[in-house]
Amino acid sequence: MRAGMVAELPALGAAIDQLLSSGGKRIRPTLVLLAGGLLDADRERTVTLAAAAELLHTATLVHDDLIDGALLRRGFPTLNAQMEDGATVLIGDYIFARAAHLAAETESLPLIKKFATTLAIIVNGELDQLLGSATGDHRRDYFDRVYAKTGSLFELAAESPALIAGAEQGTIRAMKKFGRQIGVAFQIVDDILDFTGNADLVGKPVGGDLRQGLITLPTIYHLEANPDDSDKIDALVAGTLDAEQAARLVETIRHSGAVGKALDEASDYIESCIRLLDDFPSDRPEHLALIELAKYVLNRTL
Amino acid sequence: MRAGMVAELPALGAAIDQLLSSGGKRIRPTLVLLAGGLLDADRERTVTLAAAAELLHTATLVHDDLIDGALLRRGFPTLNAQMEDGATVLIGDYIFARAAHLAAETESLPLIKKFATTLAIIVNGELDQLLGSATGDHRRDYFDRVYAKTGSLFELAAESPALIAGAEQGTIRAMKKFGRQIGVAFQIVDDILDFTGNADLVGKPVGGDLRQGLITLPTIYHLEANPDDSDKIDALVAGTLDAEQAARLVETIRHSGAVGKALDEASDYIESCIRLLDDFPSDRPEHLALIELAKYVLNRTL
Repeated sequence: MRAGMVAELPALGAAIDQLLSSGGKRIRPTLVLLAGGLLDADRERTVTLAAAAELLHTATLVHDDLIDGALLRRGFPTLNAQMEDGATVLIGDYIFARAAHLAAETESLPLIKKFATTLAIIVNGELDQLLGSATGDHRRDYFDRVYAKTGSLFELAAESPALIAGAEQGTIRAMKKFGRQIGVAFQIVDDILDFTGNADLVGKPVGGDLRQGLITLPTIYHLEANPDDSDKIDALVAGTLDAEQAARLVETIRHSGAVGKALDEASDYIESCIRLLDDFPSDRPEHLALIELAKYVLNRTL
Repeated sequence: MRAGMVAELPALGAAIDQLLSSGGKRIRPTLVLLAGGLLDADRERTVTLAAAAELLHTATLVHDDLIDGALLRRGFPTLNAQMEDGATVLIGDYIFARAAHLAAETESLPLIKKFATTLAIIVNGELDQLLGSATGDHRRDYFDRVYAKTGSLFELAAESPALIAGAEQGTIRAMKKFGRQIGVAFQIVDDILDFTGNADLVGKPVGGDLRQGLITLPTIYHLEANPDDSDKIDALVAGTLDAEQAARLVETIRHSGAVGKALDEASDYIESCIRLLDDFPSDRPEHLALIELAKYVLNRTL
């Protein structure tokens, strides 16, 4: 991932180095490498793909943090906290370009097309969110957003090794579904952690999504059980609920059964993922590792 | 170019439609189509490539205008003049994604790699300019910037049809050189027009580049003939020259021999372009059309 990039942008070397080193969980490249190992995909092309997927993710974060005005990510100052907006836009673009080149180096045309399509889906989802193009059906809007934001890139991460391996259509479809479901579960857990996580470890205030008017799965379950709170939620989305009332709502949801229901739903996705692996040879170490990865997505606390 | 994009972003349909319709000179796709015709490249893939090249150009303009705070482009309000910065960043990203997908649809791996490399070169050049990573050698800095900004994409536009056509290495090299040189000439003429053009038609104040501290070829020739003005130029680049002195300097260069020398240099590039065509069959209409295109680049007044 880092090869060349620091050297080619000497004036930005330190910032780019930190951006790529601070790293986070690296769950997308891990998924690529495990799926590639399971399917016996060419090792070098799989590693290239893993770097491409993580860089695509990184580039979208760079632009996201700029747009949201976020100052910290993974405990480090964001690029937009360190330099002017224009430079941040261009560094994101540059990382897109590097990611696209790595994708091309896999020499798989279906993979390259999938890569471009995934970028379009992610950006389109962010535009929908920014412009408030929601349908008003909370559950539908939520899962549309989750697929665009997270499911699509996890789908790419799991399906693309199958493309590199020249796998059969059935295998490609199964890996694609595995990726999409583990991605959706990952995002649901992320949204739960926004309510239940340790604010210091997660690096954001508890209930930050809801305070910003973002309706996630715990809130959806809370609304189903407490339809009377609908007005309060509408006011929050509209930005007219005062901070104290918003904090009280976050606390209510945090300690309600809604969190457990959301976790159950994530758990269903993970169980489905693990069942999909039944059809794959279990003699490879990657088989067990993918099961462990799926369980980790559900049980993580960060 | 427009297929799908307006429908997929309904909330932005009108703005995207205007962006893609206002169009400008369309010189890059024209170059792609003529080079493809000359080399008998597959028509459908060539048309796809032409759209990809123009969209890549458009995406970089969207981000450029945002970074520069430009409010007008081609006589129409820029996207950043119409919507918030975040949406403008994302629309640029979305157009990148569409351009990358079109490039992938050409199914030529060397072309796809070249496409990603070209995006990296363009963005890297903009970052150098934004961060002031200049060497201080005006001529070297200028031609580095011109290649990154314009030469690289013209190079792609002329070379890629040769890749699609499966042409010999010598042909690919010749087309690449043709593209790079016509692109450099195009940019030199652009920079001359910044001094000599009709401000109303060009859509920017005369000498805008220099006022912003950007040293282009006419200024370089002026400095060679008038080394005493070096301090004044340095002050302008540093932003410490007052507006009246800057305006006088622009007027001096505008009416000096420096403009003619810069035009002579652009003319040398165009003559070299036209000579390169001697090695190609002259019985195709695209042969003459490419000569006309090269002449137009030199003689255009807009």
